[in-house]
Amino acid sequence: MNDSLKLPDNLFVPGQGDTPEYIDDKVLSNLCESEHPADLASQLSDLDLDQLVTIFSHMSPECCADVLTHMDYEDQREIAKELSNDVLALAITRMSSDDRVDLLQSMPEESSEILLRLLATTEREDIRRLSSYEEDTAGALMTSEYATLSPGLTARQAIDKLRLEAPNKETIYYSYVIDAQRRLLGLVSLRELILARPTVRIEKIMRRDPIFARVHDDQEEVARQMAKYDLLAMPVVNGKDALVGIITFDDVHDVIEEEATEDFHRMGSISSGTGADDLVDIGLRDATPWLLIRKRLPWLMALVFMNIFSGAGIAYYEDTIQATVALVFFLPLLIGSGGNAGAQSATLMVRALAIGDVMMKDWFRLLGKEVGIALAIGLCMALAVSFIGVFRGGMDVAVIVSMAMVCVVLFGSLLGMSLPFLLTRLKLDPATASAPLVTSVADIGGVIIYFGIASWYLGLHHAAI
Amino acid sequence: MNDSLKLPDNLFVPGQGDTPEYIDDKVLSNLCESEHPADLASQLSDLDLDQLVTIFSHMSPECCADVLTHMDYEDQREIAKELSNDVLALAITRMSSDDRVDLLQSMPEESSEILLRLLATTEREDIRRLSSYEEDTAGALMTSEYATLSPGLTARQAIDKLRLEAPNKETIYYSYVIDAQRRLLGLVSLRELILARPTVRIEKIMRRDPIFARVHDDQEEVARQMAKYDLLAMPVVNGKDALVGIITFDDVHDVIEEEATEDFHRMGSISSGTGADDLVDIGLRDATPWLLIRKRLPWLMALVFMNIFSGAGIAYYEDTIQATVALVFFLPLLIGSGGNAGAQSATLMVRALAIGDVMMKDWFRLLGKEVGIALAIGLCMALAVSFIGVFRGGMDVAVIVSMAMVCVVLFGSLLGMSLPFLLTRLKLDPATASAPLVTSVADIGGVIIYFGIASWYLGLHHAAI
Repeated sequence: MNDSLKLPDNLFVPGQGDTPEYIDDKVLSNLCESEHPADLASQLSDLDLDQLVTIFSHMSPECCADVLTHMDYEDQREIAKELSNDVLALAITRMSSDDRVDLLQSMPEESSEILLRLLATTEREDIRRLSSYEEDTAGALMTSEYATLSPGLTARQAIDKLRLEAPNKETIYYSYVIDAQRRLLGLVSLRELILARPTVRIEKIMRRDPIFARVHDDQEEVARQMAKYDLLAMPVVNGKDALVGIITFDDVHDVIEEEATEDFHRMGSISSGTGADDLVDIGLRDATPWLLIRKRLPWLMALVFMNIFSGAGIAYYEDTIQATVALVFFLPLLIGSGGNAGAQSATLMVRALAIGDVMMKDWFRLLGKEVGIALAIGLCMALAVSFIGVFRGGMDVAVIVSMAMVCVVLFGSLLGMSLPFLLTRLKLDPATASAPLVTSVADIGGVIIYFGIASWYLGLHHAAI
Repeated sequence: MNDSLKLPDNLFVPGQGDTPEYIDDKVLSNLCESEHPADLASQLSDLDLDQLVTIFSHMSPECCADVLTHMDYEDQREIAKELSNDVLALAITRMSSDDRVDLLQSMPEESSEILLRLLATTEREDIRRLSSYEEDTAGALMTSEYATLSPGLTARQAIDKLRLEAPNKETIYYSYVIDAQRRLLGLVSLRELILARPTVRIEKIMRRDPIFARVHDDQEEVARQMAKYDLLAMPVVNGKDALVGIITFDDVHDVIEEEATEDFHRMGSISSGTGADDLVDIGLRDATPWLLIRKRLPWLMALVFMNIFSGAGIAYYEDTIQATVALVFFLPLLIGSGGNAGAQSATLMVRALAIGDVMMKDWFRLLGKEVGIALAIGLCMALAVSFIGVFRGGMDVAVIVSMAMVCVVLFGSLLGMSLPFLLTRLKLDPATASAPLVTSVADIGGVIIYFGIASWYLGLHHAAI
């Protein structure tokens, strides 16, 4: 593992007198030979844009394509903006079809149009077609460099065909068997081809009804299916059932990680969005302050207005508070505990729904379980808090705080577990039931429950005296 | 995509009179032929344990192995407990080496010992060796069914060897070239073998210095490397640099998802743990209430004791509160806002650290950015809240609440972003900076800042009058 690799010192030759600093082409081409493009990309990412542009202009088109592919979208865009169109066009022709579409889509339209004109017609068509699919769909994720076979070929002929085509295909380990209308008939792996008798026909050995995706399928669903069936690649068909691309296993890693990041952000009440300028794509390190403010402020403002209700709840019980100010000491503790228990339940539920561990139909059964768990947890916390209550506010306060604790934890937990289900039912993302949202709603409930119990208990008590 | 598939109705033949319900073997073997094991596994998971045991006892050992592999750990264990040892031993021999180790490790020690005795010596040794690695390491994740080649073979000889061995290998798309001491010399892909001249020697075409892992490397790090380099498989070497296993791409999906789930749970202040009985492995749906209470209560209790400090803070300012009860109306709003802003920052930072987008060294630069962002956000929120302040508590309260809002949001944000770094520095998991923890600490700070500003401002004001 080459995390600690550094660029060689002699890559840049310092300028003398009027000659500016320049690049040693030999050192650079050696680097391209010996380093993995992913490593080169991460080493280069620390350099200034000027230096990067110089380096990329001196690279071979192959190396340039490989390294660019491995850089962040943000860096890619910056570099592409500065590189000359000729250099860029050469590199783009050598990128795999899904990567170049991503790059071109991140550029301003005028620049990408100029670039497209420099490419060969077939490539231009391919890019136009791939760019036409909406982001986060199978169509946008797929590559058009896949291997196809016709059912009548023999295993030997198939291997010969793959041998010829291999350099231009993303993978030759899965080949897709198609008819004259490019309809998907089956799938044959290179392993099966090699194991087969050389004269057997593909149609005899292919696996029929392979698992496939449609161009408009959501990328998360596709990734989940590929992970479930341990697929190296998944074919993608269009509305006419014709094969138009494949998605390979390395795209799945990215999708799983991206979707998890998106859910994380939602759970932290950070607005989500799609598009090349999204926080998930750009990353926290490269995000501009303005982007972060745009992502963070909306929910915080919404929560402020929600919290006004807690304030209103307190105002309603002003007399109770004035009578027993000691009750206020326990306010943060009580509403905090309800919020924390709620955040726990919501976290468990959101994640379980996201990875498919829990379905809508499980709601009722889980609700029953949650009541039991929340009661048990609430009672433990009430016991702990009753001691503090006696010590800080006397017996009455202790009783009130303990009773309120059980109710508040129960309320928070049920809220936290139900909200994600409710959102799913409303066809919204369950992760919108963020910890801060649940906490804020639990706050309102907590205030009302706490002071409600207090004024009821104190009223009862006084009446009894 | 076969999510909606159902088991055929005629699988179970209803019993008549004294004959109990039994299974139609033909229907079952057809099912095994036609369905993907992953689909069969998810269809079966809804059945009762009794029915499951009957079905698995009637399956061919191959089908039994494939389907068991695709079931949840919890279901696997339940079924394995009930199946006869003979049936189970036959199935286990047909599982891939990493899957059977997982199954055996989830069983009680006596049962797994009995089973081991039913296996062939080489398999027993292999299982013992693989079980010896700690959980969550490369060693525990790897399989021992990999293809090796010696450097002197020709491409044609290599393909012939792979053809013979293919049925017993997890993948033949990557072969590892080793010397007599099993030290890793290089890597050759099946694609390269097929493209090579049949008479060329492996040592001429192999890629030297392949990326590898060591048995004790953390699984998360291995998954991250495999995703970075888009590897189909990664070789694993032991302390003597000898090749002992490979990790394949499908394991990476699981690790990425598992690690994300673990981080989710930590962020929701749910205690993490390792071991086969962990919540992440068992899943929320199958977790017992007792397990969930054990996972949830510790942090909630810790937070209760933390919240006592908020209460103490309020008690300290009892006089200020008694003088202006209206201040209490804004207490939930202010401490809530600080907590929410903190939860946002912590979420962004924890996730960015987890996916490697941000490193320790970025802390100082990000701190500066965060101050700017938090001030901007705080000012917006102060503006919003000042209107409510005037309306509900008059000018004084509005000024106090606005000033406190800026300070509280700044405090919460800096806390949320710094805590994950601090924990990383202390070699703890940054995700321990859970939303509830940040919220609770922000609560304490919020109380002190709010009432501190209030008593300072009111004191100043009164003195002026």
